[in-house]
Amino acid sequence: MGGVVVRNIDRVDLAIVDRLAKSGVATVSEAQARTGCMKPYMRPIYPGARIAGNAVTVSIPPADNWMIHVVVEQCQEGDILVITPTSESDAGYFGDLFATALLKRGVRGLIIEGGCRDVADLQEMGFPVWSKYIRGTGTVKETIGSVNIPIVCAGMAVNPGDVIVADDDGVCVVPHATAAAVRDDSIAREEKEARNRAKFAAGELGLDVYGMREKLKAKGLKYV
Amino acid sequence: MGGVVVRNIDRVDLAIVDRLAKSGVATVSEAQARTGCMKPYMRPIYPGARIAGNAVTVSIPPADNWMIHVVVEQCQEGDILVITPTSESDAGYFGDLFATALLKRGVRGLIIEGGCRDVADLQEMGFPVWSKYIRGTGTVKETIGSVNIPIVCAGMAVNPGDVIVADDDGVCVVPHATAAAVRDDSIAREEKEARNRAKFAAGELGLDVYGMREKLKAKGLKYV
Amino acid sequence: MGGVVVRNIDRVDLAIVDRLAKSGVATVSEAQARTGCMKPYMRPIYPGARIAGNAVTVSIPPADNWMIHVVVEQCQEGDILVITPTSESDAGYFGDLFATALLKRGVRGLIIEGGCRDVADLQEMGFPVWSKYIRGTGTVKETIGSVNIPIVCAGMAVNPGDVIVADDDGVCVVPHATAAAVRDDSIAREEKEARNRAKFAAGELGLDVYGMREKLKAKGLKYV
Amino acid sequence: MGGVVVRNIDRVDLAIVDRLAKSGVATVSEAQARTGCMKPYMRPIYPGARIAGNAVTVSIPPADNWMIHVVVEQCQEGDILVITPTSESDAGYFGDLFATALLKRGVRGLIIEGGCRDVADLQEMGFPVWSKYIRGTGTVKETIGSVNIPIVCAGMAVNPGDVIVADDDGVCVVPHATAAAVRDDSIAREEKEARNRAKFAAGELGLDVYGMREKLKAKGLKYV
Amino acid sequence: MGGVVVRNIDRVDLAIVDRLAKSGVATVSEAQARTGCMKPYMRPIYPGARIAGNAVTVSIPPADNWMIHVVVEQCQEGDILVITPTSESDAGYFGDLFATALLKRGVRGLIIEGGCRDVADLQEMGFPVWSKYIRGTGTVKETIGSVNIPIVCAGMAVNPGDVIVADDDGVCVVPHATAAAVRDDSIAREEKEARNRAKFAAGELGLDVYGMREKLKAKGLKYV
Amino acid sequence: MGGVVVRNIDRVDLAIVDRLAKSGVATVSEAQARTGCMKPYMRPIYPGARIAGNAVTVSIPPADNWMIHVVVEQCQEGDILVITPTSESDAGYFGDLFATALLKRGVRGLIIEGGCRDVADLQEMGFPVWSKYIRGTGTVKETIGSVNIPIVCAGMAVNPGDVIVADDDGVCVVPHATAAAVRDDSIAREEKEARNRAKFAAGELGLDVYGMREKLKAKGLKYV
Repeated sequence: MGGVVVRNIDRVDLAIVDRLAKSGVATVSEAQARTGCMKPYMRPIYPGARIAGNAVTVSIPPADNWMIHVVVEQCQEGDILVITPTSESDAGYFGDLFATALLKRGVRGLIIEGGCRDVADLQEMGFPVWSKYIRGTGTVKETIGSVNIPIVCAGMAVNPGDVIVADDDGVCVVPHATAAAVRDDSIAREEKEARNRAKFAAGELGLDVYGMREKLKAKGLKYV
Repeated sequence: MGGVVVRNIDRVDLAIVDRLAKSGVATVSEAQARTGCMKPYMRPIYPGARIAGNAVTVSIPPADNWMIHVVVEQCQEGDILVITPTSESDAGYFGDLFATALLKRGVRGLIIEGGCRDVADLQEMGFPVWSKYIRGTGTVKETIGSVNIPIVCAGMAVNPGDVIVADDDGVCVVPHATAAAVRDDSIAREEKEARNRAKFAAGELGLDVYGMREKLKAKGLKYV
Repeated sequence: MGGVVVRNIDRVDLAIVDRLAKSGVATVSEAQARTGCMKPYMRPIYPGARIAGNAVTVSIPPADNWMIHVVVEQCQEGDILVITPTSESDAGYFGDLFATALLKRGVRGLIIEGGCRDVADLQEMGFPVWSKYIRGTGTVKETIGSVNIPIVCAGMAVNPGDVIVADDDGVCVVPHATAAAVRDDSIAREEKEARNRAKFAAGELGLDVYGMREKLKAKGLKYV
Repeated sequence: MGGVVVRNIDRVDLAIVDRLAKSGVATVSEAQARTGCMKPYMRPIYPGARIAGNAVTVSIPPADNWMIHVVVEQCQEGDILVITPTSESDAGYFGDLFATALLKRGVRGLIIEGGCRDVADLQEMGFPVWSKYIRGTGTVKETIGSVNIPIVCAGMAVNPGDVIVADDDGVCVVPHATAAAVRDDSIAREEKEARNRAKFAAGELGLDVYGMREKLKAKGLKYV
Repeated sequence: MGGVVVRNIDRVDLAIVDRLAKSGVATVSEAQARTGCMKPYMRPIYPGARIAGNAVTVSIPPADNWMIHVVVEQCQEGDILVITPTSESDAGYFGDLFATALLKRGVRGLIIEGGCRDVADLQEMGFPVWSKYIRGTGTVKETIGSVNIPIVCAGMAVNPGDVIVADDDGVCVVPHATAAAVRDDSIAREEKEARNRAKFAAGELGLDVYGMREKLKAKGLKYV
Repeated sequence: MGGVVVRNIDRVDLAIVDRLAKSGVATVSEAQARTGCMKPYMRPIYPGARIAGNAVTVSIPPADNWMIHVVVEQCQEGDILVITPTSESDAGYFGDLFATALLKRGVRGLIIEGGCRDVADLQEMGFPVWSKYIRGTGTVKETIGSVNIPIVCAGMAVNPGDVIVADDDGVCVVPHATAAAVRDDSIAREEKEARNRAKFAAGELGLDVYGMREKLKAKGLKYV
């Protein structure tokens, strides 16, 4: 059975994408009612990166990175690759050569529910990756998969053109259709949080700021 | 069923606590006959922190951080929060707003057998956390728990007022009653280790320093 | 039953070893046809180290580090210790005192399918360790094991005198007999990769550089 | 933010569903080009069950089973419940009381990426469950979720009205739109496999039955 | 440092213990407000056992079963052994010889956060074990531990003389002081559940039986 | 790079093999000084099997079962297949068709550090498998590996012609060279264990049977 490469996908405007990056994973997830975060085994290969981009998806065979050569051509400025093998694999699918090609096209990073290698080089190049594994073992190029079809990566459904936000807190998926609304809600939350942060820094308690004392008493909380 | 907040706990003198911090997890655990360390999945969210403090404990519902608002009020200078959900949860219970409030009260860090978020901000603020997970997904505020009751966190029993020591080697619990003795034994070990370190740096072998050759021979060790 | 210490092992020339270190784990594994890498749970205790050395092996009882005192005497310039317990253990077998003794003898690092402690000190000393666990809990010295016998560490067979390459991508084993050939193949790969890196940086695609378009079409890949 | 219950979903004809059950997970997955299987941590609570049904989906808060009371009313003959918490939870969401209610409505089983309890009773009642965990600890009823929205369960996207096939090999999802085609392909495979099984039982080799010897030689396989 | 064996512990009356066994893990945990269950990696080595007994605790060195010989003498009719190593170990501490000795003394089973072996023999003998691992590898007898001191096993604090309830849902700890009350509450729950089971079997819905419709509406649940 | 099939291997006499099967994993491992057992994640797909056989080894690409077709031809009466992928894979490599072919040749079972499927059929056929995973997802046939070369499976080195013993306690490897001696030692242990079992059944204590009281006292054990 053959795979398919979908060439044209509907991307989110980069102004929206970039504002979501600024908000970061925790705020964006909160703005989506605590949804969107991939499983916590997806970790950055080095600390400190915070990016957002349009998802270009790859459904890839286990331990076979042929399709990554295919997907490079489909990428453009502001994209993030999202790759999931069809069964578990810790092989090192991705290294500095792919990153060189992707950086040239303006790709901002990689999310892979598999293995990554050359992590020291990738850090030096400034190409961030969130992966399930780090492993030196490479892959073959024998079996095809598909590009820009709906996939599931680390517990989250990802459609091509969804926005991916990734930082030290992990990876969050923002559906294409709600990206602008989530950005707006994220901004509102940031403003509200800034006010509360100032209160907490001044010594006020969340119990009072949020008016929780009565509700806790009603639930039966007792002080002894 | 309601929860309970115990207001008054018996803390260890901070002079003892601070000396234990200086010794660090490995030495303190050794001084307790190889006990006290939480399971190794409890990792610092950033490297380099070394703290000790009096445990303020929270038994918390899974994926519900309401009780963290409650516990802030019970904290004071030199405390460390120790939080365990009543069943497994990787949700992100804790972020920079809580840390702001806790820093204001002199709390030194957090130990949580669950998820943490805003880890880049927490590093910037200098609020160290040892957690089982890092995850952007937040929690609800619907169900109550208890503060300052005996809990189990990552395999170790923790009572309010026990001393927590945490560094890059993980987290160690020192029971309230033996804190001073453990401090003394830790100091003695440091002195002994300093002497042995000098011998090893000079090329002496542990086999000779500790007089092990005869015992190994008696056990049947053979050189070929 | 007694253990055995094999004193004389056949080491690989350090010129070969050092060139393998320069190539690093990913290239060396590729030069071995995607073999040699230990399981990805073997992680460096701090980032940035890249070493190679001759394997000195230790089969060690779980939670008992007596044999590490024994093995120090068998080590020499350019060695790397490789230690596996005979059943699972997360105990902290190794700390800064051992590292002091090993550095004195020119040992370059430690690979252990168990626990390590004093990790902040080890980073400061510049003694790199790749371990399965980090844990403050120490071990006893009651039961003997063997030095320089064939072992399995984290999924890979290791014989004394094999070359170990370790960096941020993990740990790779190069059999003694093929070390020179793997070095040569690694160098050839580096040259080839440098050429391809330049092409990718210039915007060429792997699809064209490697002539993959026809093969993908033959496999049934479709563009829509 | 409120949840939503979608009352009307488009189910697959039970004749198709039942034929898929007969084929079982391995054949159905093969007929889908090796896709559709949930992660292997989804295990039956007792061996020997083989079912298929129309998916009724629930996105549920961690450690909160309120929505299971809601979903019962939406179930009908031939359905299978598929439940995923929005963050990891090993709590025991489901037991024999729910199973009693669901059996009454003709529900055939439960797939839950969380915990199940009363497993001995469920086996006695003949209500099969595939879960990630078995745990006695129960849940609260405080927070709402949604019924019959698209979810991800154990690595697979599940839409309401997809067909779920589950047996001792795990759980497989068949998309609604392709259920009939997958059934047909599964039947064709069973016939082909029956012929090959007879050949293998008679001592023929796959190397000959599938004509693999030349291809293996071309790949470079050598016999020594 | 030496270990200690506490000879005299305060056991719970076996009439209470036996009634708790009849209720089983899920009910007893519910009667304790969803607490008491060990982590779900504690699994029975064979299905179908349901026991309760007075906890006799052992803090044991990793991969060393010497103390199991010590504890046999301290056991009596109606006891359950609860064993935790001081650091992780998957070694096979326990087999049919120990079970023979314990059965002779009326011990009902074993809970061990480590490895067990001879599982086929143990099933044949009818000696149930809940363990974290099953492994053939045995242990040494070199290092002492303690009997009948407070321990933590699989996430739960266990004191000597607490009641252990174990069945196919896992293992639950009932503190000595509340055992009678938990029994009473368990019985009350069973009666209530029996009534509800009859209603559900008759087709009533939990939404109505528990009067949930209004509360769900107030929370914002919408039907579409 | 091509793979290799080694046709002629030196097998252990089946009389020795069969006697080792009778002893079982725990006794055989004990007779090897607590070595030989694979990691405990290798579990039987159904309970109750106890086998031994000569190892026929396969180093296999991840998620590719082509080489299993190759190895069938190399198998004979009394063999056990031992298969390890070169990087982690949970794919279902093996099912009832392969088992049909292998049973015809007298193969006794399969050990695979990967996935297995058709487990209900395999149980019905009486073809036992010890695997790391059970998963319905199949594999491709694109890349070659090697047959009858030394491999590592689940933590143990396995050479072709070693004896594999497998039962409900897991899988144990007996090196070819020591198989007869291990059989003899296993028999001696069984006789000794039978005598001790009788003593324990009569109420004697290990403390007295093994004369441990003095040694424990010398170690510092105290009774209170």
